[in-house]
Amino acid sequence: MALADRWLLPDGVKEMLPSGARQVEALRRKLLDLYDSWGYDLVMPPLMEHFESLLTGVGKDLELNTFKLVDQLTGHTLGIRADITPQVARIDAHRMHVKGANRLCYCGSVLHTHSANMLASRNPLQVGAELYGHAGIESDIEIISLMLETLYASGLQDELSLDLGHVGIFQGLVLEAGLDASVVAQYMELLQRKAMPELAEFLDALEVDAQLRSLLAVLPTLNGGLEVLAEARAVFADAHVSILEAVAYLEQLATMIQQRYPAVDLYFDLGELRGYNYHTGVVFSALTPVFGQAIAKGGRYDAIGKDFGRARPATGFSADLKTLADLSVGQNGDIAKGILAPEGSDAALMQKIADLRSQGMRVMQQLPGDTVTDASNFSRKLVKQGDEWVFAAL
Amino acid sequence: MALADRWLLPDGVKEMLPSGARQVEALRRKLLDLYDSWGYDLVMPPLMEHFESLLTGVGKDLELNTFKLVDQLTGHTLGIRADITPQVARIDAHRMHVKGANRLCYCGSVLHTHSANMLASRNPLQVGAELYGHAGIESDIEIISLMLETLYASGLQDELSLDLGHVGIFQGLVLEAGLDASVVAQYMELLQRKAMPELAEFLDALEVDAQLRSLLAVLPTLNGGLEVLAEARAVFADAHVSILEAVAYLEQLATMIQQRYPAVDLYFDLGELRGYNYHTGVVFSALTPVFGQAIAKGGRYDAIGKDFGRARPATGFSADLKTLADLSVGQNGDIAKGILAPEGSDAALMQKIADLRSQGMRVMQQLPGDTVTDASNFSRKLVKQGDEWVFAAL
Repeated sequence: MALADRWLLPDGVKEMLPSGARQVEALRRKLLDLYDSWGYDLVMPPLMEHFESLLTGVGKDLELNTFKLVDQLTGHTLGIRADITPQVARIDAHRMHVKGANRLCYCGSVLHTHSANMLASRNPLQVGAELYGHAGIESDIEIISLMLETLYASGLQDELSLDLGHVGIFQGLVLEAGLDASVVAQYMELLQRKAMPELAEFLDALEVDAQLRSLLAVLPTLNGGLEVLAEARAVFADAHVSILEAVAYLEQLATMIQQRYPAVDLYFDLGELRGYNYHTGVVFSALTPVFGQAIAKGGRYDAIGKDFGRARPATGFSADLKTLADLSVGQNGDIAKGILAPEGSDAALMQKIADLRSQGMRVMQQLPGDTVTDASNFSRKLVKQGDEWVFAAL
Repeated sequence: MALADRWLLPDGVKEMLPSGARQVEALRRKLLDLYDSWGYDLVMPPLMEHFESLLTGVGKDLELNTFKLVDQLTGHTLGIRADITPQVARIDAHRMHVKGANRLCYCGSVLHTHSANMLASRNPLQVGAELYGHAGIESDIEIISLMLETLYASGLQDELSLDLGHVGIFQGLVLEAGLDASVVAQYMELLQRKAMPELAEFLDALEVDAQLRSLLAVLPTLNGGLEVLAEARAVFADAHVSILEAVAYLEQLATMIQQRYPAVDLYFDLGELRGYNYHTGVVFSALTPVFGQAIAKGGRYDAIGKDFGRARPATGFSADLKTLADLSVGQNGDIAKGILAPEGSDAALMQKIADLRSQGMRVMQQLPGDTVTDASNFSRKLVKQGDEWVFAAL
């Protein structure tokens, strides 16, 4: 590697210099304090686990997005987490023994083998909250509310929209059609890509009755405003009851969210399944005009804990804190200007410096021979007046 | 992998449940605020870089401790950082353009292929501070002081001791002996292991004059209190001048540290070289009786930046924040008890809850059907009195 390339970062990997890092740190504290005030306890799952533990209960796409390592101590395959939600599910299922609702939150780095989209980094700082042990709509409402509060706290209240879907509609359809797992995976993949011509070809070749085929074909077109739910009720009138229940669930959810957050635009996308394949019920994502992709997303996933030996209802959301901090630039304070103290180890000076620092002030002591090149970093300086150290203009 | 093993973590990997995570988070904020008050700007280097960038200017032992990955996008070899200091040196050398002193701090996860010692984890949360651009003793004093303040802030002020060494003594000796690089590496390895019988054998086989051989043999025995420096001055009286300068540097440093921190015990270990081989001057570590290994360590490393095309004097220290938090248990606050709010979406109730949360209070809203199993998590509850929502005992 040439000298000039040694400081290049891999594609899609970002680092934070002081101004950006300060924004991220300020927002990190604000969000973790927000989650704490809602009763969510912080957990810190490890960056690295056994590969199989990281992928328990999740889909193939998460596996492909997870970096593999060999443990020199044991020869086992390890992985660097690409998602924190399954780790928190493991903690709820196995490390904690809460019988009722368990509210957990986290903030940590994840790595992706490839970027999720053009705007996504391969080293996001994932922040999120999860609510275990409650299956009712109220816990979905609480999590969606906390996701919206996360965006408000990040200064992203303008023109927010919330996309809602429900995996139960897809699941009801493939159940009714009696499709094989491999065929389901193909259908799912085409839906996620919204690859309409390919989807049409795929469905033509499928051995199901014409009515079901038309329902499988109409699913990815069911997106738009509230009118989509009415349309879905008509389209699926004779379909499996679980499908109509999912539509009714979305209607109820929409009413409750609108009541709490009238300024948020609601959209529906009934073919939306979310990545990673672990969702089982409602899925949601938040969008803002200043960013071309979802800035936060989540959903219900009642099945992960089962693979750890303890099935628990679960719902949660996550976001990339670095993206949120980028979008909220200027809202989380600049670097405070410092006070310049002279060099030396005069006891009264050292005491004065310690006192100012303990009051939260930023004091830099001049180093002998160091030229302070950027006076704009300092607001004032310390000078001796009689026996006292006092402030003076620079 | 059997169901029962899926929740097992790899050897040496730790995770934090709510009580531990809360301690770590509280101490993290306290330390970053401390560094800020000393004028150190936070940076966030990435978890993953090109393998070669991570290892530029550092020794073979760091290479062996770094996990390797293949970048699917390019085929390049990537690494998960095992140390953050070289990354911060890269940032100072290449990303920032500060001419005088540059003070930087960080807090982030690192991974090690093997544990440094029986007590060390393979996924430490490395926290530290680095001072670039100043070569005088004052910057070493500042960094050692900030390391000690880090331990004080962690509640570890009792019976602290500071171990001091200076790589210049070793370097002066091997320079004078005119040893080959591979022989130097062997000697260094034996010193670091303090493998005395093997060292004697190694020196017997070495073709150097008897006087130099006896100096190479005496180096690892020079450890103890201040008297060691007087001994070293006598032993090295006729040796290379750089060796005597290093001893004099340690004497001056000791005087200044004792003046500032009279309660800290000073020890000297002149054969101490610190791991990772990037140190060039003074090396130091802090010990406490409650932990069997150094709890913080650092030193001067003026050479790393050179390999990134910009040599800058540098000194810094680091510690594992999780170890510090473990040792300071009970000093950083328990989980605050919450306020239990009833279910429902009554507008006045929702407003009351939002107000309390924005005041920093922890309010959990009851979910329908959820039995609150642990009343000890709550201090009081909200009840309706007339039109008002007020506190009541549980």
